[in-house]
Parts: sequence; structure tokens; C-alpha cells
Amino acid sequence: MTTDISADTKIFERRESQVRSYCRAFDAVFTRATGSTLYDTDGHAYTDFLSGCSSLNYGHNDPDMKAALIDHITEDGIAHALDMYTSPKAAFLETFERLILAPRGMDHKVMMTGPTGANAVESAIKLARKVTGRTNVISFTNGFHGMTLGALSLTGNSGKRGGAGVTLGDVTHLPFEGSLGDGVDTLAMIETMLGNDSSGIDAPAAIILELVQGEGGLNAASRTWVEGIARLAKQHGAMLIVDDIQAGIGRTGDFFSFDDMDIQPDMITLAKSLSGFGLPFALTLIRPELDIWKPAEHNGTFRGNTHAFVTAKTALEKFWADDAFKTQVAEKAKVLTQRLTRIADLIPGARLKGRGMMQGVDVGNGDLAAAICAEAFTRGLIIETSGAEDEVVKVLAPLTTPMDQFSEGLDTLEASARACLNAHVKIAAE
Amino acid sequence: MTTDISADTKIFERRESQVRSYCRAFDAVFTRATGSTLYDTDGHAYTDFLSGCSSLNYGHNDPDMKAALIDHITEDGIAHALDMYTSPKAAFLETFERLILAPRGMDHKVMMTGPTGANAVESAIKLARKVTGRTNVISFTNGFHGMTLGALSLTGNSGKRGGAGVTLGDVTHLPFEGSLGDGVDTLAMIETMLGNDSSGIDAPAAIILELVQGEGGLNAASRTWVEGIARLAKQHGAMLIVDDIQAGIGRTGDFFSFDDMDIQPDMITLAKSLSGFGLPFALTLIRPELDIWKPAEHNGTFRGNTHAFVTAKTALEKFWADDAFKTQVAEKAKVLTQRLTRIADLIPGARLKGRGMMQGVDVGNGDLAAAICAEAFTRGLIIETSGAEDEVVKVLAPLTTPMDQFSEGLDTLEASARACLNAHVKIAAE
Amino acid sequence: MTTDISADTKIFERRESQVRSYCRAFDAVFTRATGSTLYDTDGHAYTDFLSGCSSLNYGHNDPDMKAALIDHITEDGIAHALDMYTSPKAAFLETFERLILAPRGMDHKVMMTGPTGANAVESAIKLARKVTGRTNVISFTNGFHGMTLGALSLTGNSGKRGGAGVTLGDVTHLPFEGSLGDGVDTLAMIETMLGNDSSGIDAPAAIILELVQGEGGLNAASRTWVEGIARLAKQHGAMLIVDDIQAGIGRTGDFFSFDDMDIQPDMITLAKSLSGFGLPFALTLIRPELDIWKPAEHNGTFRGNTHAFVTAKTALEKFWADDAFKTQVAEKAKVLTQRLTRIADLIPGARLKGRGMMQGVDVGNGDLAAAICAEAFTRGLIIETSGAEDEVVKVLAPLTTPMDQFSEGLDTLEASARACLNAHVKIAAE
Amino acid sequence: MTTDISADTKIFERRESQVRSYCRAFDAVFTRATGSTLYDTDGHAYTDFLSGCSSLNYGHNDPDMKAALIDHITEDGIAHALDMYTSPKAAFLETFERLILAPRGMDHKVMMTGPTGANAVESAIKLARKVTGRTNVISFTNGFHGMTLGALSLTGNSGKRGGAGVTLGDVTHLPFEGSLGDGVDTLAMIETMLGNDSSGIDAPAAIILELVQGEGGLNAASRTWVEGIARLAKQHGAMLIVDDIQAGIGRTGDFFSFDDMDIQPDMITLAKSLSGFGLPFALTLIRPELDIWKPAEHNGTFRGNTHAFVTAKTALEKFWADDAFKTQVAEKAKVLTQRLTRIADLIPGARLKGRGMMQGVDVGNGDLAAAICAEAFTRGLIIETSGAEDEVVKVLAPLTTPMDQFSEGLDTLEASARACLNAHVKIAAE
Repeated sequence: MTTDISADTKIFERRESQVRSYCRAFDAVFTRATGSTLYDTDGHAYTDFLSGCSSLNYGHNDPDMKAALIDHITEDGIAHALDMYTSPKAAFLETFERLILAPRGMDHKVMMTGPTGANAVESAIKLARKVTGRTNVISFTNGFHGMTLGALSLTGNSGKRGGAGVTLGDVTHLPFEGSLGDGVDTLAMIETMLGNDSSGIDAPAAIILELVQGEGGLNAASRTWVEGIARLAKQHGAMLIVDDIQAGIGRTGDFFSFDDMDIQPDMITLAKSLSGFGLPFALTLIRPELDIWKPAEHNGTFRGNTHAFVTAKTALEKFWADDAFKTQVAEKAKVLTQRLTRIADLIPGARLKGRGMMQGVDVGNGDLAAAICAEAFTRGLIIETSGAEDEVVKVLAPLTTPMDQFSEGLDTLEASARACLNAHVKIAAE
Repeated sequence: MTTDISADTKIFERRESQVRSYCRAFDAVFTRATGSTLYDTDGHAYTDFLSGCSSLNYGHNDPDMKAALIDHITEDGIAHALDMYTSPKAAFLETFERLILAPRGMDHKVMMTGPTGANAVESAIKLARKVTGRTNVISFTNGFHGMTLGALSLTGNSGKRGGAGVTLGDVTHLPFEGSLGDGVDTLAMIETMLGNDSSGIDAPAAIILELVQGEGGLNAASRTWVEGIARLAKQHGAMLIVDDIQAGIGRTGDFFSFDDMDIQPDMITLAKSLSGFGLPFALTLIRPELDIWKPAEHNGTFRGNTHAFVTAKTALEKFWADDAFKTQVAEKAKVLTQRLTRIADLIPGARLKGRGMMQGVDVGNGDLAAAICAEAFTRGLIIETSGAEDEVVKVLAPLTTPMDQFSEGLDTLEASARACLNAHVKIAAE
Repeated sequence: MTTDISADTKIFERRESQVRSYCRAFDAVFTRATGSTLYDTDGHAYTDFLSGCSSLNYGHNDPDMKAALIDHITEDGIAHALDMYTSPKAAFLETFERLILAPRGMDHKVMMTGPTGANAVESAIKLARKVTGRTNVISFTNGFHGMTLGALSLTGNSGKRGGAGVTLGDVTHLPFEGSLGDGVDTLAMIETMLGNDSSGIDAPAAIILELVQGEGGLNAASRTWVEGIARLAKQHGAMLIVDDIQAGIGRTGDFFSFDDMDIQPDMITLAKSLSGFGLPFALTLIRPELDIWKPAEHNGTFRGNTHAFVTAKTALEKFWADDAFKTQVAEKAKVLTQRLTRIADLIPGARLKGRGMMQGVDVGNGDLAAAICAEAFTRGLIIETSGAEDEVVKVLAPLTTPMDQFSEGLDTLEASARACLNAHVKIAAE
Repeated sequence: MTTDISADTKIFERRESQVRSYCRAFDAVFTRATGSTLYDTDGHAYTDFLSGCSSLNYGHNDPDMKAALIDHITEDGIAHALDMYTSPKAAFLETFERLILAPRGMDHKVMMTGPTGANAVESAIKLARKVTGRTNVISFTNGFHGMTLGALSLTGNSGKRGGAGVTLGDVTHLPFEGSLGDGVDTLAMIETMLGNDSSGIDAPAAIILELVQGEGGLNAASRTWVEGIARLAKQHGAMLIVDDIQAGIGRTGDFFSFDDMDIQPDMITLAKSLSGFGLPFALTLIRPELDIWKPAEHNGTFRGNTHAFVTAKTALEKFWADDAFKTQVAEKAKVLTQRLTRIADLIPGARLKGRGMMQGVDVGNGDLAAAICAEAFTRGLIIETSGAEDEVVKVLAPLTTPMDQFSEGLDTLEASARACLNAHVKIAAE
């Protein structure tokens, strides 16, 4: 492979844009990865509790997907075919239909968008506006939906928004559950605002939401709230778009984050772990009666990544043909809750956030959260923060992490938290 | 691979969105490809004169890139690492610096954007607005820059624009060279408009252009015009952005489409053939003094596709280490000009368009162009149209196509044109 | 005058646009007016409880203003002078400074805008954006600020907004006090939303509000709420703009609607009763340190209506030189509260709205409110509805209405309400 | 009147916003005016070659309008009635129909907008967008249409536009005749751009234009060009809106600026001299089949200024009942052309601009133009500049100016030009 490359980072400093970011927290040059372990060029091993921000839910280089992909390439399988028909695409679609859609009674059509989540989001809001003839889209406080102009307009974070350099319009940002404090009924508030013809909130083409806000601080909406939002969307003629890019594909326990709720989204965006292997791949599911696109009305050179079709099909067959994986994830999530509760109990005012294998601890401020993650990295654990002020230490381990490695990783996290708290106490005492 | 998949297309009709498009012109299910040849599930071979819209400039499954990629995967090389440091990224950056930037005296920084051309474009206009504090971006008639909201606002095509469902603002569309007819000096016109403080055209943050408009009809701007636009950009404090997504990476003869011109773009967007293998990969080159991004101010899960780093590095080493490839492309381009001239001579009013290995024939109307391409497909040649009214038959063969296959493909194209013209004549005679 | 004009309305039907509206409720051709009485071409007299939507706070054709205006015209006083210096403008400014600004310790500069309230609003938000370098303006549910594009974007009413035909952007609409129900603390909610950096609400250039929402249903904000909003504006670096176009100039009891509150608005818009005589005249008051306008950066042919300077000066001297007028208005307002309470008590679920001489009864639905106003008109009383669903019967009598005429008008209103309620009861009983 | 007001300007400096502008050029306090003469508080007389920017086409305080207005006020005629039916409105409408619309075979409906030109423009583009369901409006280089957000988006001047503080969207600015130099056929260019489906110019709801650009430098479009634009509007389904606010009502020789052209605008905006007396009054004429407004969908407190109805009716009867006035204006315009040609001949490179009684001299730069106007003011002549760089000395004398006063004014202008040129020559020689 790249044995000629030294571990130093000068080339990045010299030639890569300042916009790079994760590399600043994880000061190593990675070269190899399997399962839940990353290796750097010096041979150090790191447990991965970040998973490419939930893009590696099945871990790194899963052997079955790896074999299927090598086979495909070896046999000169198609790598790129725009949106022409290919046998890997057919295989993926049939598998997705058989293992995901059919068991759920879903008859959604699959739109192959560009290979990024942002592109799937852009396609969904385009279609919602086209279907309804309206322009306004409702999104939520702390929501994150991507960085292209349409997706960014839906995103709450002011730092991200500020990068646009232009006004981000045609969107109304309403408060997500819990964002106004525990006592405030945001659903009732939203219902009243949408019901008032003089609210200044134009009739919505769509309501787009994440059920667990991955970047926004692991805020998990309750079943009641989500079903309420779905009801309001229907009542006001708005498309309900679930952005399941980070929370979907097993992360919260089932394939979709809403599988245990009584809603039927009009559109669902998927990306990140969709390929199963970390390859760029995204799609938008749309109820068939909404599929009023004209050919190529939304397109993109890399729509439908053929290599990703191969790995995604393998992933579906391996993990979603029966309930075994789902059961394992549920067990691991229980452990996660227990262990994070213990960590939260160490920190005055801290609280558990999230759901399933998408949980974390709000430690109260970004400085402490950053310190814990930095400490963890020195101990060989890759983990990141989340939230409006980066105040949440977020565990996004591969769902396939072996229980002992998972447990060790959580030990490391707890030790890191204790170390930081001791340091804080010391500093305070001086 | 996917031998269990029959060649029928029912799964696509049943489950894939109506938005699919190329598959409508090429009614086959493709399964394998090497060099300039695609194979369908029935074993038929097709010569590829489309190259994934210039995403496969080095052909399908180049053996060296294939070997490097298989090696990488076999050794559990990183597949996905967000924007952490990895050895394949270092290798790519060093190779790109050594073989592309250094020889040209360019000191641009490399911004790893999301893996789509649209994302690279979005990053460029964001940065131009951030750097200048202005909002207006100038783009051109018949330009195409992508389908996400920011990129789409730069795109001229009304059908594509209509899909937005919202007003596309903060952009002024000015006439590209030749778009107002042969006698009209669009450069002088643009100079006058930008020089008039009451033109209603707000001071531009950037001027973005393709040097050969790939989707817009293979309109190739002259050296004089391009240098004039570069001068105006400088004079008015606007960033000059060259969108080299389709025309770059060898397509017009050298790595960049502007290599033989006296301009130094502030930003350059690359995608399509950047990976060399058809994998999703895009980047934006930015002059170092413009690199004022804050970390993660523009980001994306799949920024920097690691598999693509591996193939892209191999491609650079194989094709750009010396002038051999460039010389071959130049020879092939001459043949293309000769053969297309002959075809154009068959058709009253037809004319040659484009430059390098990005040439075509404007046959006067979309119906005839579509008929020629359809006829060619029945004869085993994959080729598409371009232009505002799809009036240009566009040859985008892999640059690596062996001369005999290239020649046969052009024979097929000529025969298809003759067949369509005869049919037209017959119809007209009846 | 126009004795040759018959009372018929054919000319209006034939030649005036369908957009006309008040004439549909009041089917008469008016020709003369004094004090609180309008006369139609048939000689019928009507008591005016509408006052040109608060544009005639001192009644029709006040004899002193009338005399001053006739004098001015007779002596060939300036009628129109753009924004050149004129003696009537000097006289107005000196009087406004002496009787309004100085006693309140206000050092605001006077910006002569175009003669409409909408223009004053447009000038205020322009300046707020210029001063802060921000684009977003916060306005409120049920707010009304005018019909030109900038003012309309601040307006809540969906029917009005729909007329724009384009997206109305750069504004965030937040809930006015009480608009989410009695128990909901909208101030706390707004504080939380503005304090969350990931709310998606861009940092505001300004917060604009009416203290009593004239068109929105006579919603009167409490002192606590208004002072809270003023505090939030200051805290977030936003300009506080009080739109006092309808609620100002005596309507709520003092010259400004906020005179009894502890706030100092950065900008105040005035129009409607500013001329005192019903002439088009508007202005914007701005704190002197905000007066960073370049000459003519906002202008307009009719900025500063000279005839209006003459009447406005007379009005200020007659009504605001001491507290007598204010005292009378307070007494009349008390009567109004008593009488409207009695009417509200007749109607199940009805409730009193508003403050000062800007009060009404929310009768629960628009049909009943319209019926009461229609009945009142047949009895010689001109009165209109207000509110998101036109559910409020709104009393906007001239502040100068003699007590007996005021009382008789209220008798008529009560009788009309009773008549409608009896009719409703009858209909219900049938 | 205001004899107690001294002529000093301290009150303005102390209390009026910096945004004031004309007063900076004309350092006097005006107090009285008749015909074409203004008097300041020191008793100095000035000839008015500005006419309130064409708002006083019939001069100051025309005795017949003055008498009618005094009668109206004396008899307690309505001053303000929202858009209720009034006898003065009926009289105005009947007179306008009889003397203006009927003789021209026009069946337009009259929309009473707010009393400013900007408001009329806003109403027109709203309606055009509503009628067509499109958002884009085409306006022209150097065009000026007002300062509220919708009108400002149509305006070309960058200084004015910059005051918005937000992006001005939904408008495409195309080159006005002559704005690209004498040899360039802007009509052909516009035809090509509108005919190209990939131009990036969205299908227009309307094309709005001034036939003579009053603020933009007295650019007078030719009959051929205007008729061509009208044809293109029709062909592309766009409303043709003539903004006749400055050029209409006699200024170019007939009531409308297009009276000698073969076009029938879908909408026409009128303001400025519409009242005849300098009172705020505007309206929009709309073809009856386009009158799809819902009641109050566009409204405004001062829509239809009743005092202005009285004076406007008198003006129509006095000046437009026969051709006498038109003939006089034509004669005066000839004199103007002769005299301005003589002045232009004095100045190297200078050239005549405009048409009818809306002519001026482009002296090549703003400094010289400003110097000439300043010199003229010291000699008792009020005159202003126009154009993107204020390079045109613009004569907008009242159309009713007696020939001797007109001639003397032109003598003063010529003498001022000579004085400035001598000064320039001296400076250059030193």
C-alpha cells in the first residue's frame, strides 16, 4: 500500500485547506482498519467510537463486504455508469425491497441521488416543493442536514450557516422537542403557530426532522412528539421528511429510526452507513404517488455508486435478513445506557442523551467534553463531541463492536472522564 | 458477481424513481466493463463514447488502478475516515503536488469537499462570498454547475432550474462567448455592464465558468475571451472560479482546460475523472491566501474518498508523470476533429463544436441528434447529446480508447448519421 | 364641490380595480365630513368609529388645522419641495422637538420618509440592517407593517403575504404575547430561542413590534413583555423598532404607545394620524448615533408632505402643549372599557381586547363580527373588524369625539350586537 | 403662515436625518411658490427647472387647482376616507376616463395604490407575478423605480441598492437601449437571451421600463426599441409595465410617454405630477382582464388621496380637454432642444439627452455637471443632475413656464456653463 509515506503530517499542513477538522483532534496518520479498530502509521491501534459519524455502523472492512467488493472489481464489474441499468443496482434494489421495504409494508420508490446525504436532502426538499407548489420548509432547532445551500438552509448551527455568505431563505426553524426547556410543550406551540393564519409562517411544503439529532446534541424526540409532528404535517398538507442519515440503518436499534413509531414518512433520506463499507452512497425514499419527477430533473454524475451497491447488498443480507443483529444492538444499547449513566453520575448536572447505540453524556460545557475526548484519544479511543456548544460526549461505536472491546472502550471513556474531573477539581482547588 | 440477476428491467420500473434518465436511452442492463467497452447481461459489447459524462477519461477498470485498489482493500486499507489524516490521502496529496501543481508553478491548497462536483462548486462560491463579503456570483448562459441549490442557481438550463421550487438568487447570468451570435462581442458587453454602476448587477464575489461547456453544447471559449474574463474578474475584485469538472483532467488535452492560457484561477473545481476509476471524488483548489476557512466551516461525511485517493494517485503517476499521454490525446483529438468534420459536412447547417477530446456536432435540432444517438446504440455505440435543445451529438470517449476502437466507433457514428439522414430524406420525400 | 356627481357607484364598478375593499362594507358615496361625522351624497350622516384606521385621531376637518391649511394654500405656501428646506418643515420640526421629543428626553433625529407607513417601516429596517450588518429582522405573529415588499415580509397575515408572489425572506416571525394561549410564556421562549446558537434564527438586525396590534386583533402587549423584548433586543445587538403607526399619536392615551413603559426604542415609525388631518405623511425617528445614512440613500418624491407639515404643527400645538387632551382621552377610554365590557358580557365567550381608545370585542368568529358591523352601518355607524379571522369588532373613534356622540355610537354598537345575537338565537332555534 | 420661522437651517441640522439631500445643493429655506418661481425666506426668487423631479409639471400653486382645493377644504370635503367611495374620487375617475382613457381607446382599470410611485410599482409587479405565476421581473440598466424593497430590486443604481442591506432578488437587469454603446443592438441581444432556454434568465412575469429614464441620465428609448420590447413581452407571456411616473403626464409631450408608439402596456404606473399640485398621489392602470386582485390584497392607509382627486380632476380638465397644452409643450420642447444643443456645443464631447420637456446635456462627468448646477443656483436657477455618474445637467422645468421665464432660465444655464468652462480652462492652464 503506502509504505513509502512517512507518518508525518507536513504534506497536510502544506497542501490541505484549513477547513480540515477531525484531523485536528486526532493527531495521527491512519493507514489500516478492521472491525472497530483503526491503526496509524506507527502501528498504534485505536478503538473507534466515532464510526465516521455513523458511516461505519458495521465497522471497518467487514470481511463479507470486502470479499464481495474485491470479487466485483476483480471481475471488472461496473464502477461507474451514471444512472444506467446495471446488475449490481438491480441486485441492490431487489434486496432492499425484499429485506427492508416489504417487511414494513412500505411501497416507497428509491431515488438514487448524488452520493452525499446533503444531496439526498436537497432532492427531498426539491420534490416536496414541486409536489405542493409551496416554498417554505419547516426544520428544527439544533437540526443538521448538510452543507450545500439548500441543505444548509435547514441546518440550525449558526457557524455552519454563516459560511453560506448569502441569506438562507424559504425555511422556518421551529423548536425541537425539549429545546425550550423541559416544561415547555413545543408540539402544542407548533400546532398553534401552524393553525394561525397570521403567524407569518407560510404554509409548509415539508417538515423535515431527525428523530435523534446527531450533530445537535443527541436530542431524541419522543414517540408522542414525532407522531404529533407527523399528524400536523398531514393536516397542513406538508410532506413529512425523515432525515435518517445519521440515526438510520441500525443506529437507534432498527433499520429506520422510526420503526417503532406509528408514522409513515412521505420521504426518507439515507446515506452514511447505507453502503455498509463507508463508501459514498445516498438515496431518498419517496412514496410512489409523489414520484412526479421528470427524467433527470434532479441528477448528478455519481448518483448510485456501483461499488456501494455491491457492499450495501451484502450488508443488507448479512445484517437485516432476520432479527439477530437487531437483538444484539439492543443488548449493546442497554450496556451503553448503564455505562453512560455511571459516567453522567460522576459529573454534577450531567445527563444522558440519545437513544439506542446513539447515546452520549451532556457534561454541561464544551470545554469539559473536549477535554474528555482529548484524554480518551491519548488512551487510544477515538470519540467526539456533539451539540450546539459541543457539550455532549457522543458514543457512535460500530454496532458490530465485540462486547469486550465495547466494554474496554467504555472503561477508557470513564477513566478519561475521571481524569479530567480530577484535573478540574485540582485547578479549582488551587 | 450478480449472476442471479436476470437482464430484465422490472425491478427498476417497479422500484426506482421516475427521475432516472440515461437508462431510458440505453435499454440494457450493464454488468461488466473494461477499457472503452461495456458489456450487458446478455453478453453484448458496447463501445463507450460517453465515459460517464467524462468521469471515465482513463476508461473502465484500468488494470493498474484496479490492482492498486484491490491491494488496498485486501490489506484492510482505510475506506472511510472523514477528514482525518490517512496515508492514502498523504500519498495522493504528495503526488498531486508533485505531478500537477509544482510543474505549473501553482501553489493552490487542496480542499477536500464532498465527493460530488456540485459540492465542490458550492464550496467555491461559499468561499468567494466569504472572502469578498459580497453575494452576487456571475455565471454564464448554457453553463451547468450542479443540482444542489447553490450550484443550481449558477446553472442556466430552465428545466433543471425549475426543479428547485424556489427562487434561485444571488447570481447574475451573463452571455457566454458566442451565445448571442457570431458577430456579437460578449466580452465588450460584459465589460461595459460591469463598469456601469447603475447596471443593477451587484458587485460580483466571483465569476464562475467552464472553458468548454459540457452540458451546454460543447461551447469552447477562446483564449482571448477567457483571458478577458480573468482580467475583468481581477479588475472588479471578483474571484475567478474555473469549473473544470467536465473539461479538466485531460479531456481538452492537458490536465486543466486552461493550461495553454495565461490565467491563474483563484479557485478550480475538479470531480468526475479525478479518481480515475469512476469513484465519487471531488476537490476544490484555492489560492493559499484565500484559504480563510475555519475548521469544518464547510464539511461533509464523504469529503475525501479514501478508495479514490488510491486510484487517483495511480492515475496521476500513470498518465501525468510525463507528456506521453498528453501527446496521444492530442493525436486522437486531431482524428476526432477530422472525422466529425466529415460527419458535419453530411448535414446541412451542421457545425463542429468543442475542443480536444470534447468535441461534437451541432446537427441543428434535438430530434435529429436524438435519432443519431439512438441509431448508434442499436449499432453498439453509447453516445449522448448535449446543448440547450440537445442539438449536439457529443463524443466523450475515454481518452485511452485504442485507436482502432476509436476509429470503429466513429465509423459507427458516421453510419448512424447517414442512416438517420436517409430516413429523414425519405420521410421528406414522401 | 362635486354636486354634479350622482350618488351612484357605477363609475367605481366600471373603472376602479377589484382591489378596493372598505367601499364594499360601506355602501354609500361620502362627500363631506366634520368632527366624527361623515355625510354621504344623499345627506345621510354617519358616526365614524373607524377614523381612517386611526388616521383621523382628531376627527375630520378640525377647524384649526383647516384654517391653517387654507391660509397656507391661499398665500401660495409651498405644496411640494422634495426634501429641500422649507419654512413649514422648520416649523413642524421645531414644534415636534419642543412638544414631543424634549419633554420625553428623546434626542431622536427625524427622517422624512415617503408619506406612507410602509415607507417608514422600509426605511427603519433598511437602517437597522445597515447599522448592524445583519439581515434578519424579527417580527411577530399577527403583526401588520405594510404592503410593500420589505414591509410585507414583516407582516403575519397569510392573505396579504400571498399577494407578494415571491418568497418573503430575511425575517423571522416569533409569537406575540398571548398568541400561543394564556398560559404560555412567549418571552421566555423567545429568550431561549435567541440564546441558542443552533436555533437556525440568524442574529437579528432588529426586532420590530406594535405595542397594540391594530390589524392583528387589538392584542395589547403588557409592559413586562415589551420591556423584556427591549432587553432582549439590546442583549442581542438588535435595533428595537416600535411601529407606532396605528397605536401612536394619542390612540392608546399618550403620544407614543410606550410612553408609560421603561423603554427607549432605537427607531419609531409614525404615519396615519401624524398629519392630524388625514393627509399622507410619515416619518421615522432614529437615535442620533444611528443616523449613518448617506444623503438620499433612502429617498422618495413625496418625502415630507408640506401641507401635512402645516396641519401636523397645528395639531401638536392644539393637542399636545399640555395634558388636557391626554386626560380627556383617558376618560373616554374608561367609558369605552365599560361599554365594551357590557357588550362582551352579552356574547358567550367574548372578551375585551386592546387598550386606551384602541379597544374592541373579540366575539369569537368573523361572521358574527361582520354581522354586527353591517348592522351598525344600517344604523348610521361606521365600524370595522380586526384580527386574524376578523373576529374582533374594533372601535377606533376619533379621540376628539364629543362624549354624547361617543355614547350614542356605543349605544348603536350595543343595539347592533343585540340585534345580531337575537337573529342568531332565532336561527339556532329554528 | 410661518413668519415666526427664521431663515436659518439649524433646526434641520439638529433634528433632521443625514439622509436629506436636495437641501444640500440648494442652500435656502423656501417659503412660497407660484408658477415656475420659488421664493425663500429672505425674499429671493428662484426659477424652478427641477419641478419636484417632474412632480410639478403644471407649476406651483396653479390658481385653478388652488381654488378648487380651497373650496373643497372650506366646504369640509372629505380629506381621508381609505378606499371608501367618495364624490371626489368619482369625479376624478369620470374625468380620467373621459379625457385620458376613452380618447386613447384604453379600457384599463384604475388601481388606487398608496400615494407614492414606489407603491404603484410594487402593486404592478405583485399583480404581474400573481397573473403569471412567475417570479422573475426584467428591468433595465440605469432604471429607477423607487426605494421600497420590491421597487428597489428593479432599480439599477448600486448606491441605492446598497441601502437595502439584503439581497435584492427575483429581478433580471438587462441592458437598456444605448447602454452598451451606440453600435450594439440591445434589442437583438435581449431577444436572443430570452429565446435561449438555458440562459439562466427565468421566464419573466413582467418587463418594466421607463421610456425616458429620468434618474438614469435621460436615456430615451426609440420607438423601434420600445415596440420590440413590447413584442418580446407578449411573445414570452410577460406583462409589459410602463413606469410613467417621471416621464408621463405631459413631460415628454403627451399624457403618456408612449402615446406616439404602437404599444398597449398591460400596466402603467403614474405618480409625481398626477395630482397636478405636488400632492402625494399614485395609481396603477391595469388591463381589465388582469384585474384579478382580491379585495384589499394590496392596500394602504393613504390609497387614493382625496385632496389630490380634487386637484387632479381640475388639472385634467384644464390641460387635457383639448390639444392646446400639448401643442405648447411641443413648442417649448423645440426651444429646449435648440438651446441645449447650443450649450452642448460649448463642451467637448457633450451630447444632448432625452426627449420633449425632459432633456439635458451629458457634459461628460459629474464634477462639471455639479459645478454648472451650483453656479446656476447662485444665479437664481434651481436645476439638478441625473445619470449613473450624475453627468447629465437635466432640465425639468414646469411645462407651464412662460416662454420668457423659460428663455431666461436657459440663458442662466448657458451662462453658468460658460462660467464653469472658463474656470476649468483656467485651472487646466495653470
